[in-house]
Amino acid sequence: MIPRYSRPDMVAIWSPETKFRIWYEIEAHACDAMADLGVIPRENAEAVWKAKDVEFDIDRIDEIERETKHDVIAFLTHLAEHVGSEEARFVHQGMTSSDVLDTCFNVQLVRASDILIADLKALLAALKKRAYEHKETVRIGRSHGIHAEPTTMGLTFARFYAEMDRNLSRMRDARAEIATGAISGAVGTFANIEPAVEEHVCDKMGLVPEPISTQVIPRDRHAAFFATLGVIASSIENIAIEIRHMQRTEVLEAAEFFSMGQKGSSAMPHKKNPVLTENLTGLARLVRMAVIPAMENVALWHERDISHSSVERNIGPDTTITLDFALHRLTGVIDKLLVYPQNMLDNMNKFPGLVMSQRVLLALTQAGVSREAAYRLVQRNAMKVWDNRTDFREELLADAEVRAALSEEEINEKFDLGYHTKHVDTIFARVFNED
Amino acid sequence: MIPRYSRPDMVAIWSPETKFRIWYEIEAHACDAMADLGVIPRENAEAVWKAKDVEFDIDRIDEIERETKHDVIAFLTHLAEHVGSEEARFVHQGMTSSDVLDTCFNVQLVRASDILIADLKALLAALKKRAYEHKETVRIGRSHGIHAEPTTMGLTFARFYAEMDRNLSRMRDARAEIATGAISGAVGTFANIEPAVEEHVCDKMGLVPEPISTQVIPRDRHAAFFATLGVIASSIENIAIEIRHMQRTEVLEAAEFFSMGQKGSSAMPHKKNPVLTENLTGLARLVRMAVIPAMENVALWHERDISHSSVERNIGPDTTITLDFALHRLTGVIDKLLVYPQNMLDNMNKFPGLVMSQRVLLALTQAGVSREAAYRLVQRNAMKVWDNRTDFREELLADAEVRAALSEEEINEKFDLGYHTKHVDTIFARVFNED
Amino acid sequence: MIPRYSRPDMVAIWSPETKFRIWYEIEAHACDAMADLGVIPRENAEAVWKAKDVEFDIDRIDEIERETKHDVIAFLTHLAEHVGSEEARFVHQGMTSSDVLDTCFNVQLVRASDILIADLKALLAALKKRAYEHKETVRIGRSHGIHAEPTTMGLTFARFYAEMDRNLSRMRDARAEIATGAISGAVGTFANIEPAVEEHVCDKMGLVPEPISTQVIPRDRHAAFFATLGVIASSIENIAIEIRHMQRTEVLEAAEFFSMGQKGSSAMPHKKNPVLTENLTGLARLVRMAVIPAMENVALWHERDISHSSVERNIGPDTTITLDFALHRLTGVIDKLLVYPQNMLDNMNKFPGLVMSQRVLLALTQAGVSREAAYRLVQRNAMKVWDNRTDFREELLADAEVRAALSEEEINEKFDLGYHTKHVDTIFARVFNED
Amino acid sequence: MIPRYSRPDMVAIWSPETKFRIWYEIEAHACDAMADLGVIPRENAEAVWKAKDVEFDIDRIDEIERETKHDVIAFLTHLAEHVGSEEARFVHQGMTSSDVLDTCFNVQLVRASDILIADLKALLAALKKRAYEHKETVRIGRSHGIHAEPTTMGLTFARFYAEMDRNLSRMRDARAEIATGAISGAVGTFANIEPAVEEHVCDKMGLVPEPISTQVIPRDRHAAFFATLGVIASSIENIAIEIRHMQRTEVLEAAEFFSMGQKGSSAMPHKKNPVLTENLTGLARLVRMAVIPAMENVALWHERDISHSSVERNIGPDTTITLDFALHRLTGVIDKLLVYPQNMLDNMNKFPGLVMSQRVLLALTQAGVSREAAYRLVQRNAMKVWDNRTDFREELLADAEVRAALSEEEINEKFDLGYHTKHVDTIFARVFNED
Repeated sequence: MIPRYSRPDMVAIWSPETKFRIWYEIEAHACDAMADLGVIPRENAEAVWKAKDVEFDIDRIDEIERETKHDVIAFLTHLAEHVGSEEARFVHQGMTSSDVLDTCFNVQLVRASDILIADLKALLAALKKRAYEHKETVRIGRSHGIHAEPTTMGLTFARFYAEMDRNLSRMRDARAEIATGAISGAVGTFANIEPAVEEHVCDKMGLVPEPISTQVIPRDRHAAFFATLGVIASSIENIAIEIRHMQRTEVLEAAEFFSMGQKGSSAMPHKKNPVLTENLTGLARLVRMAVIPAMENVALWHERDISHSSVERNIGPDTTITLDFALHRLTGVIDKLLVYPQNMLDNMNKFPGLVMSQRVLLALTQAGVSREAAYRLVQRNAMKVWDNRTDFREELLADAEVRAALSEEEINEKFDLGYHTKHVDTIFARVFNED
Repeated sequence: MIPRYSRPDMVAIWSPETKFRIWYEIEAHACDAMADLGVIPRENAEAVWKAKDVEFDIDRIDEIERETKHDVIAFLTHLAEHVGSEEARFVHQGMTSSDVLDTCFNVQLVRASDILIADLKALLAALKKRAYEHKETVRIGRSHGIHAEPTTMGLTFARFYAEMDRNLSRMRDARAEIATGAISGAVGTFANIEPAVEEHVCDKMGLVPEPISTQVIPRDRHAAFFATLGVIASSIENIAIEIRHMQRTEVLEAAEFFSMGQKGSSAMPHKKNPVLTENLTGLARLVRMAVIPAMENVALWHERDISHSSVERNIGPDTTITLDFALHRLTGVIDKLLVYPQNMLDNMNKFPGLVMSQRVLLALTQAGVSREAAYRLVQRNAMKVWDNRTDFREELLADAEVRAALSEEEINEKFDLGYHTKHVDTIFARVFNED
Repeated sequence: MIPRYSRPDMVAIWSPETKFRIWYEIEAHACDAMADLGVIPRENAEAVWKAKDVEFDIDRIDEIERETKHDVIAFLTHLAEHVGSEEARFVHQGMTSSDVLDTCFNVQLVRASDILIADLKALLAALKKRAYEHKETVRIGRSHGIHAEPTTMGLTFARFYAEMDRNLSRMRDARAEIATGAISGAVGTFANIEPAVEEHVCDKMGLVPEPISTQVIPRDRHAAFFATLGVIASSIENIAIEIRHMQRTEVLEAAEFFSMGQKGSSAMPHKKNPVLTENLTGLARLVRMAVIPAMENVALWHERDISHSSVERNIGPDTTITLDFALHRLTGVIDKLLVYPQNMLDNMNKFPGLVMSQRVLLALTQAGVSREAAYRLVQRNAMKVWDNRTDFREELLADAEVRAALSEEEINEKFDLGYHTKHVDTIFARVFNED
Repeated sequence: MIPRYSRPDMVAIWSPETKFRIWYEIEAHACDAMADLGVIPRENAEAVWKAKDVEFDIDRIDEIERETKHDVIAFLTHLAEHVGSEEARFVHQGMTSSDVLDTCFNVQLVRASDILIADLKALLAALKKRAYEHKETVRIGRSHGIHAEPTTMGLTFARFYAEMDRNLSRMRDARAEIATGAISGAVGTFANIEPAVEEHVCDKMGLVPEPISTQVIPRDRHAAFFATLGVIASSIENIAIEIRHMQRTEVLEAAEFFSMGQKGSSAMPHKKNPVLTENLTGLARLVRMAVIPAMENVALWHERDISHSSVERNIGPDTTITLDFALHRLTGVIDKLLVYPQNMLDNMNKFPGLVMSQRVLLALTQAGVSREAAYRLVQRNAMKVWDNRTDFREELLADAEVRAALSEEEINEKFDLGYHTKHVDTIFARVFNED
């Protein structure tokens, strides 16, 4: 986790304070359930809640851990210092450390998911706003970086909206993947603890019981979770790359908002660099790099080994913090993106009329010219425009073979921009589920 | 794709024959839709169906492609050789190559998904069968490769079942991710083709229209798809690793079926090597390696670039073929796996009684011994068993401090195996959704 | 491996014919060495060479393998059919399959390396030629996709040369990494075969003996090898991305050579798409995706497991074939790249004079203006040029505060292009090791 | 970076203090060189050294950066607060931020490399010591997890030594890869700064000048660097997996040292878990996950974009810190590893005599039995031992067909362990370069 690429709410989820608070709640709820079952005395369960408002002393827990080399025991020892060692003697009874650790990790991932879901919603709102704002703002569509046919800036925003809307749906699925808890004992057989304890704790913690666990919650869930973050990160990169292209000096169809006082470069003061989206491109790589380790974590030995743990101590916080930051940054970029419609038109007309060649090709075939011949005719005139920047429409009008198939009026008609934007409403209705 | 790791049905999906057949169907259905709209003559649309039963000549198409350097044009030229160039002149009208290529790719992925879904179901059936067969077959559960507490072989199969059942659900979601088609033209604006054509073609091909496309179908869908295959592969590795461990000479709790006539090693004829599951471990890596490239494919430039194409030409066939093979191989391994219950018991008793130490610990605390003291008592006796392979129960009976807390009867009772298997039914009911 | 992205010489290295030929040579040389040691009769060793010019029957070997389920035994059985089973009885004596398989794999990788090294040299030659050709061709350098200061096209080619020269060096190191052989028996102890056999075979096959092997050659070597291919692939992507940027419609400073008769797009005949470099971008991903599996292959269990095998059956051929193709394709692209110097100048002057702002900033500080003030002065005038496309030099001349620090002559002097190219010779001397 | 997996010396390299100290040295040395060239006044260069022993105020620099949003400007502003703004006015003249940032990053990586090289040497020393200690300690070699033939524990340590020795060599190469600096200006043309400045600064900072840079140092170097760390991490995993296998309850041929007072598990006090090597397995994944992003960083746009920056802010510290920690931890594990020779013998004799089957096979063929027949004979008797745990030697002696080929004495001789260890000296001489 890099502080400059983090936001406090997400960071807080991964703090020791939060972790111990969750551990505490799991242990306390488990005591309640055990008291309900008559396994431990009710007063001992109630005693645990004495620590309800205690702020646990992280340094003290660390100190105990240095001695015991075991984090959960260290915490329980510290808890007993608050609750009383006699009263606390039934805490954690029949449980194994992973019951606490794994359930806690999933609680953290669920809370992280809730922030990411909110982030995605904010991003979607920004994309939708900009999409409608530029619904009819014509720009050239490009394939291979080469001018193709006209489209609109609104459609660009709309496709990012559709992509992020899928990501919202994936994120919800990912949240469900890891919204499970397990209190099932050393190898998951409930030998020393009743399934009812697991049910009660999960219910209180906003989770569902893992149908079958083995000390640990199976890691295919987490692999699917981090893979989803990787997909979302790749979509962020997708948008970032688009904006970086738009802001290129030669293109300049859009630019990141540039606040006064900000210095673009120590050497070249005039430069307005798309540093936010370049940064997002890098952040996407960081989120994505967790995917393979998360998948390598699935094949734990027998009922569990602990190889996944160091990986998750890193990627748990790092990827959620980075993705939260990236989504928020992207939302700001979209929200304040400077859009230059005039430059869009100027760019489109760099090779005047050439972007209409597909329509002309179609018109020629419809007028009875063979596909091969039409192709040749269009290519011939297109090459002139490409080489000399003449006007495609005029070249066509001056080409006898073309004119033999199409009248002046028919040719002129092919250069109407409205032809290309006529289905924007249809597409918007699909994307934004309009009635 | 490695022939030895492939099965014919999946391979067939990726053959040139299948690809051109799907292209043909897309083009023919598109012609129908255009005729319905009155955009092209009905007879031309009908003429295309003359090629309905034609086997396209792959060599001929390749020959044309070498000349035109364009695969779709090569196909259309060849199609015209069957349909008649006059009749075929409206084929592909207003469409762009990607309308065909991308829709075809998704049709192939959907069909591949259907095979993979069937594979998963077969695997689930095998796992379920073996789970019930060994529901009560006691074996030692292991964490860190070290004996922990008893579990059953049925629970091992059951947890693999639960994991693969999640994978089945993920696979269905992945199928839905890529079950879209697009016939939207050069930059996705429907400038030269009506949305109704897309709707008709998608309907006929078993797809839904992509809400917004840009010549290409957005690649976040494919990233999510291949990520899912990566998760499934990781689960295969998980099962494979378990079996490899079980078949180790020192463990030998299970073994891959070893057919007569098969030679394990040129040098050591007695060796029964778990080569199938080792192979599955490697195949898992192969499937997983497609995940990152698929994610790198998401950020295409503007409305599209073609960088994703070479990647997909490889990972499309290779990962689906490999995963199909791997799932099928794994099903065979599970189905015929030799299980050795007696070895399981022998292994569990390697350090007699030691696996019950957790129960004893619990009993001591419940009898009023402090957690710390109980821990010390259990550890003291456990160490003797570890070092000298004496019997844990006997050591406990001989330990005065232990006996001060627990009677002989109470101690003996802790060594009952039924204690550990008492919730197997509960877990099976959860996993297999029994009523 | 995708046929369209492959070249015959590299493909041939991975054919069954080549593999069996190498196996044969290993076995025959091993027999010679064993005869030298007196371990087997000389006449039996000599008899093996009867098969020197035999073309092994792949189908027959496959047939035997289907029965024995063991490839080396199948080959040996077939070899005996040529040599005579009596004469062939000492072939493979004391050896284990991996002695043959692993040594063969490394022979193949060495040969593949030799092709890749030749590919890199050809690419370097093309880059060098174009570098000198465009040594003084001025174009704008860009950071963040934004105009920075002038550089030359020759420097662009030169930096790719320097990068690929490093890759040549890395490739040679990678070749050395895997240029080892092992004939050390079942667990690498030479129990059944003398080290002298290994030495002889390695010498004949162009390898050095692996200092310590364990049935298999350690896989850290292969991990390092494939990682190097991944780095080279990333450099290919680097060049490809540069060219794709240069060919953008708005930039058009260079373009891939476009042969007559080639059709850029079925829909837009005028389009000259950078499809080769886009393809190279994708191929880079394919090569790179082998890196992690190759690293996952390192941790084999004990003296060996076979999980690496399926991975290597794929990535061995696939990555070398793809990289060979990609390097060759890139060499062609570089060799024939169309460069447009006039467009370079036109682009540079899009915001007239603005690229000289750094020089002006420097001149102002040198003239005694504080860094902060100079920055503000330059930024103020730069903004005018950015917004209104006026001439930066003229704006400066008209700015009283600037003129208070710099004379007209001093300002004019800052706009000399030669200032930026004055060290091109120095850099070329460094890169091309000129004296 | 996870504090619990870090060591202070490596962490210090990546502290803001160290970074600003290196920035300072680069700027100060650059001023010296500029004074030598007469570009700036000598006294201004000398003035910069006034800050030689200053501890820069990180909070103050951060404060300035929040305002200017530019880290290098913030540092320079703060430096001027120490040196005097008049005296400091020539600092950074003609330079661009990346001249400082990239050169600094490589200085940090070089220093990190030096620690890693020292780590590897310490590990090698531990491995060598244990190798000689257990040179003749016989244990069974295993392929596929199945007993193969005898080897020695010393050979196991020796092969890890050889692997890590290769890694030492790779690490030195990796250090050389990134031991370059660049002070070449905004696009690397030295327009505003003389190459002599770069030479002087690099010389002082222990680097060589980058032959051709483009504001940034080319990232193929860093890709190669991080790929090397990934290979080393994979070797760590390789050793870790071996130890985890050895410590399995059923195998128990070695165990991580278990300090008194350490608690293995909160629930099962007797358990001695190989948690250090499991942890190393996870740490290996963390180091490895940086490889692909580092490769994705290579293809920067034109002369540079800043997408690599956020990636490197993370993987620069994280992978070097993690790898340092992992190498150190592994050295401790090796150094103190508990080795159990008696258990090794017990394991080897699990199926008495069976591990000698390869020798018997060879003896039979040498005695004139055909390969096929010998194979059958050996397999027949081996199966009995496998199924009934009888003694292989006795089975052979009782097999008339075997006895027809081999005498009792000849059979007995095959069960001599010395046969398998006779070349240990040869291998040690190779690995440890003994004379």
